[in-house]
Amino acid sequence: MRPRLKVWVVFGKGTKFGDGRAELLRLVEREGSLQRAVGRLGMSYRSAWGYLRELERAAGFKLVERPPGAGPAAGMRLTAQGRAFLRRYETFRTALDRAVPRLFGRSFRGR
Amino acid sequence: MRPRLKVWVVFGKGTKFGDGRAELLRLVEREGSLQRAVGRLGMSYRSAWGYLRELERAAGFKLVERPPGAGPAAGMRLTAQGRAFLRRYETFRTALDRAVPRLFGRSFRGR
Repeated sequence: MRPRLKVWVVFGKGTKFGDGRAELLRLVEREGSLQRAVGRLGMSYRSAWGYLRELERAAGFKLVERPPGAGPAAGMRLTAQGRAFLRRYETFRTALDRAVPRLFGRSFRGR
Repeated sequence: MRPRLKVWVVFGKGTKFGDGRAELLRLVEREGSLQRAVGRLGMSYRSAWGYLRELERAAGFKLVERPPGAGPAAGMRLTAQGRAFLRRYETFRTALDRAVPRLFGRSFRGR
């Protein structure tokens, strides 16, 4: 018997941000490119881009940007606010992953 | 921005027990009848019964039983182990519901 968890951060009217979207942002950060990030996830560019725009509208700040002065093929990176948001989400996620087995063990102790 | 969570307890090969199934057990406990419990949930008797049998196999103990000496129309109740399991799940769930806003607030502080 083991606990399993799904977590999201929900914005305003219901736009959800969870582990899959966090992975997308992490890959943009690492690859410097949305194209390469979606390639690694087997996701379409169109749906990733659509999601990011929806998320930015819901969050009220930009998460990704093109490096200044670069052409359309130059890639994409996280904004400072995008990075800060991702780090906060990761902190929350890690804290939960640590807390859950403890709470579970305490509740089901003796079984 | 708010956290949202889905939680399950997973047995052996993947049988999941979450809030919906906990509600089914709570209703069996309250109504003394699987028939009335599924009626309240808008669930089919057949699928609820199939799920309970699968869960009992996965858990290795009985969750529900017919009251002794009673005919097939006499209803159903939780076993002692079924009640204990449900209470443990509820304890776990309550502990999580208390912990999540605290962990979320701590991680996203300042935003």
